[in-house]
Amino acid sequence: MTANPRVVFLKRPEIGELPVVGRHIILDSSPTIDLDNVPLNGGFLTMTLMLSPEPSIRDRMRDPSIASYTTTFIVGAPIIGPGIVLVLRSERDDVNAGDYMYGQTPWEIYTVQPYVEGMFCTNFHNRPSHPREWAPDTFDMDSLALRVVPNPNGRYPLSKYISLLGTPGLTAFVGFEALVDAKEGTTIFVSSGASGLVIRARSSSMAIQLAKLKGMKVVASAGSDAKVNYMRSLGADFPFNYKKLSYDDALAQYGPIHDNVGGEALDAALDSLIPKSRAVICGVVSSDNVPPAQRYRLKNAHLIMKKRLELRGFIVPDFIPQFFGKFMEEVPALMPQGKLRSEEYLTRGIENAPHVLIDVLNGRSDAVGKPIVMIAGD
Amino acid sequence: MTANPRVVFLKRPEIGELPVVGRHIILDSSPTIDLDNVPLNGGFLTMTLMLSPEPSIRDRMRDPSIASYTTTFIVGAPIIGPGIVLVLRSERDDVNAGDYMYGQTPWEIYTVQPYVEGMFCTNFHNRPSHPREWAPDTFDMDSLALRVVPNPNGRYPLSKYISLLGTPGLTAFVGFEALVDAKEGTTIFVSSGASGLVIRARSSSMAIQLAKLKGMKVVASAGSDAKVNYMRSLGADFPFNYKKLSYDDALAQYGPIHDNVGGEALDAALDSLIPKSRAVICGVVSSDNVPPAQRYRLKNAHLIMKKRLELRGFIVPDFIPQFFGKFMEEVPALMPQGKLRSEEYLTRGIENAPHVLIDVLNGRSDAVGKPIVMIAGD
Repeated sequence: MTANPRVVFLKRPEIGELPVVGRHIILDSSPTIDLDNVPLNGGFLTMTLMLSPEPSIRDRMRDPSIASYTTTFIVGAPIIGPGIVLVLRSERDDVNAGDYMYGQTPWEIYTVQPYVEGMFCTNFHNRPSHPREWAPDTFDMDSLALRVVPNPNGRYPLSKYISLLGTPGLTAFVGFEALVDAKEGTTIFVSSGASGLVIRARSSSMAIQLAKLKGMKVVASAGSDAKVNYMRSLGADFPFNYKKLSYDDALAQYGPIHDNVGGEALDAALDSLIPKSRAVICGVVSSDNVPPAQRYRLKNAHLIMKKRLELRGFIVPDFIPQFFGKFMEEVPALMPQGKLRSEEYLTRGIENAPHVLIDVLNGRSDAVGKPIVMIAGD
Repeated sequence: MTANPRVVFLKRPEIGELPVVGRHIILDSSPTIDLDNVPLNGGFLTMTLMLSPEPSIRDRMRDPSIASYTTTFIVGAPIIGPGIVLVLRSERDDVNAGDYMYGQTPWEIYTVQPYVEGMFCTNFHNRPSHPREWAPDTFDMDSLALRVVPNPNGRYPLSKYISLLGTPGLTAFVGFEALVDAKEGTTIFVSSGASGLVIRARSSSMAIQLAKLKGMKVVASAGSDAKVNYMRSLGADFPFNYKKLSYDDALAQYGPIHDNVGGEALDAALDSLIPKSRAVICGVVSSDNVPPAQRYRLKNAHLIMKKRLELRGFIVPDFIPQFFGKFMEEVPALMPQGKLRSEEYLTRGIENAPHVLIDVLNGRSDAVGKPIVMIAGD
């Protein structure tokens, strides 16, 4: 028998409560698995290589009676999130031992897939809900199932499937393809990284690079000098540390802006957006971790009419059918050319996964680049 | 000589200050005019029949150094706003004595047109600005010049040119034609009339009727029982008095909503809008009359992303070139059929115009229907 530790979802945090390790999520080191003999039931056995702590994980922790954009977790089952796995054995024709796969996977080392135990939408024993019982337009996160991805064969590290080629990169890509009016010479504001404000960008690094590829000027915010340097290295024209320079002052200095991805500093952005421009709001909702009464309240909403602005909220799964093909065609080709880069911030060991997740959810991570929990590989 | 009283713009109110009669605007009864001999200089002489106090008048009072959506007034010149005039004499081929005209006109009884004294964009003696010096996308309100309108010949009162056929009606029409996703059986929330909140609808009566013509369900808010009854008479399915029932409670009861015109109770609307729907924000900015620190702050902005909402701010002049023809083709025909109705709240005498204007700007008017200052006619 082989040890198979997992990160278990213990208890739902209250509305506006930041989850706590030991109280809401916990590492359970006791499970074991017989890798050679565990029945596959027509499925396949995977070994987790990397896990991606992502903001939607917080949304999935809420009580299922609260309508939101994701289906929720089951208490007592493992956390589920995007990850990269290696196939060890398979009984399926379209999946082979040695394949790499990317998609939603439980936070444990070895898994018989497709994994159903923690999947709320699967209507089996003791499961409280069925897909059709969810509020309309709730996205079934578990439908983002594992799929085989090309073996990069050394052209890029596997971790890119979680950063540039994962949901963070796809979010920025979709934002530009579907929503941003990306015109050469216009200025875009890309925000990321602050806590306490309403909304944060999901992949500021990808957004910066896509904006530069389209010939835009980029104003970008981050919460540390190291992150500011990283943004500058990616091509941002005016990166600034919002802990040293206020959003209002920075945008007054570098603005006016024509477009806004992310909306971290949506209020300051509303003030700086030129008339008839657009704010595209995606990604993290740090407001989930703040009690409703303490949530940041927008003071510049009246400018939406005065400036004839358009605000668009989106989540990436809504656009996957339309844009995933184009994304996989264009982005991997740009990576080896060096036209799209990213840094990943690796933490090793599943035992560290709970803490890395909390750091991502509270937005206070000092990590430069996409946080990734490395289990094996690379 | 004939008396020609006028309403003069005396002093710019501070940011967030409600203008006061006697301090910021004042009736000047001293001017006179020689109706038979005043030189027309190739123009025409008009007599004002009706004036329309409108919210954009407040925006035009601001200091010109503050960028916004309108050009500003000149201190010492008359207030300018939409009105209906009768042509008394003309030296122009396309304008004849006896014609009715609708458009921007100074708040006085008799005027040699085209009027230029108070028009900020006209670059003559002692005028501080030229059109090209305004911030981009500032709309030159004075370009909404008087134009000849058909004599209704008793089919409808002239006052309809200010309500259903004027900017209030046009705003709702444009909202529906260009921006609202008006589908049969869906629910729309039309708000109006409250003070203290961010944004108010401009013509809730027209919006209600257009929504009903398109087979939508209409939830509508107003600030008095008389207004609620009026909304019900126009076809609103769930009109409510927001002074008796909170927006949150009302929308929880009558929602969820698919669309939102106006945005008076934008916050409650964000909470009630179903995912992937749209809020269209037009019309009054009562926030102009409230000090910035006391402005209503939006608590539900995070829902823009979670619900994948689209917020669209607009002002009607941006859409006039595209939609004015269709508007004048469709709406006058629907009025005699009784398919589009409106009430007008008439106050007689230019001496009452300043007070009626302030009532409109502070949103506290108890008037049911469109407030109109009647000078002569009908």
